[in-house]
Amino acid sequence: MKLLRHGPAGAEKPGALDTNGQIRDLSVLIPDFTPEWMSPAKLQALTAIDLSKLPLVPEGTRLGTPVTGVRQFVAIGLNYRKHAEESGLEIPKEPVVFTKALTSLAGPNDDVELPEGSVAGDWEIELGFVIGTQCKKVSVADALKHVAGYCLANDVSERDWQIKRNGQWGKGKSFDGFGPIGPWLVTSDELPDPQSIPLELAVNGEVKQQSNTADMIFPVAEVVSYLSQFMTLLPGDVVITGTPQGVGLGMKPNPQFLKRGDVMTLSAGVLGTQRQRVI
Amino acid sequence: MKLLRHGPAGAEKPGALDTNGQIRDLSVLIPDFTPEWMSPAKLQALTAIDLSKLPLVPEGTRLGTPVTGVRQFVAIGLNYRKHAEESGLEIPKEPVVFTKALTSLAGPNDDVELPEGSVAGDWEIELGFVIGTQCKKVSVADALKHVAGYCLANDVSERDWQIKRNGQWGKGKSFDGFGPIGPWLVTSDELPDPQSIPLELAVNGEVKQQSNTADMIFPVAEVVSYLSQFMTLLPGDVVITGTPQGVGLGMKPNPQFLKRGDVMTLSAGVLGTQRQRVI
Repeated sequence: MKLLRHGPAGAEKPGALDTNGQIRDLSVLIPDFTPEWMSPAKLQALTAIDLSKLPLVPEGTRLGTPVTGVRQFVAIGLNYRKHAEESGLEIPKEPVVFTKALTSLAGPNDDVELPEGSVAGDWEIELGFVIGTQCKKVSVADALKHVAGYCLANDVSERDWQIKRNGQWGKGKSFDGFGPIGPWLVTSDELPDPQSIPLELAVNGEVKQQSNTADMIFPVAEVVSYLSQFMTLLPGDVVITGTPQGVGLGMKPNPQFLKRGDVMTLSAGVLGTQRQRVI
Repeated sequence: MKLLRHGPAGAEKPGALDTNGQIRDLSVLIPDFTPEWMSPAKLQALTAIDLSKLPLVPEGTRLGTPVTGVRQFVAIGLNYRKHAEESGLEIPKEPVVFTKALTSLAGPNDDVELPEGSVAGDWEIELGFVIGTQCKKVSVADALKHVAGYCLANDVSERDWQIKRNGQWGKGKSFDGFGPIGPWLVTSDELPDPQSIPLELAVNGEVKQQSNTADMIFPVAEVVSYLSQFMTLLPGDVVITGTPQGVGLGMKPNPQFLKRGDVMTLSAGVLGTQRQRVI
């Protein structure tokens, strides 16, 4: 299924995309897509619902994050060879891990507000996934069983705060709104192989990033297994898996950063599209 | 007040220390110390309770983290001059920020389990604080109003995972149980100045760290204000503020790391004591 949350920020309701690509309101049946709803049993139960019998949500309704009550928002860095190269950094031998503040999570089409005085805002299209079941020290072979589903993400970054403000990347990644995810969560049963998703990001219509999750150095199964070696993953945890080449920081001869008024558009096949205005 | 949570892991109840230093059970009156209970109004209301009329909790009862439902667990690095020096790192010009997994949070006296094969487990006594009200871009002058209270913390670290496993410190800081906090939260009204707390950590009775929060490079008010510039802080967020000199990694001529069977004891004046066995 394609699960989503619709409505004003902070008052979203659960919904799902029907076979015609229209949004149906699930809020009469279930309260919200909290972490417990990411379990295999609950997701399986949702498939019993005949969406065509539920109310349509008006077109143009705002979408929120497809899951709420998220407890951990983890990100992988340098997970595409050419992006590591454009960043002038070594190809990692094991995943680079950092975190984004929970409060950076935002709907897929919400405006992205640059911090005051920012001159180094940047884009990063990424495959995201949501954990379905608590796990620790899982093998690569078992890893995907713990994934509830997949979504599109933009790991918006302020490079000055990320790089020049004394180490550890989280600072430049944690501003409110710097973590748009969605529009929907494609449940794992509909996407057994997350390593063949096209990714494309444009700024003001000009394509900047174009790749495919097939190019990830550490695929999703390895990322889940790796993270679970040093931390317990919880249902509802959101993990984004690194961005391919084409970020503003890597532009030659000079970096190109976001300006107020720019529009980022992202698309990722079955995962849908995002559109964010920079303010 | 000195707020705490008592009982088996995962089934703790709220309590408070009475004037005789005995634990009183608050669970008949209130459900648990969730983030909403960190608000100034709720904390003020708690002072209306005559603890002597509430049931005593038996001595020896396990203590959990003094707050539950924590959403963000943030840590400051290199916040004591001599610790930066012993680590061979520059004195930071602004706070170094990283995060620990929520699942590393543990009670003050819970066993600390080193990951399999670990040979670089280390200790870090720290002052911790809990956010009481949501805040963003607060001034240093207003910052302490957003702090619900203070607690002792041990930022247990696995140095190989922190340093040798491809950047970003969180990896070595996030194992289950690597974030003992407590025994209790001293509410801000009882501790208007958090910058005069003695800190002492011993391993097997031998003092390793001895300092005072007066030596912090960035005091609590500056830490709150700084974090709030790039992220929104939420009620219940736990922030630990950096460790003074004397960690195992800094020992000369050779680092000294934790072995199974070691016992760490921590004390911090009014913030109480911790004792963890390494397993």
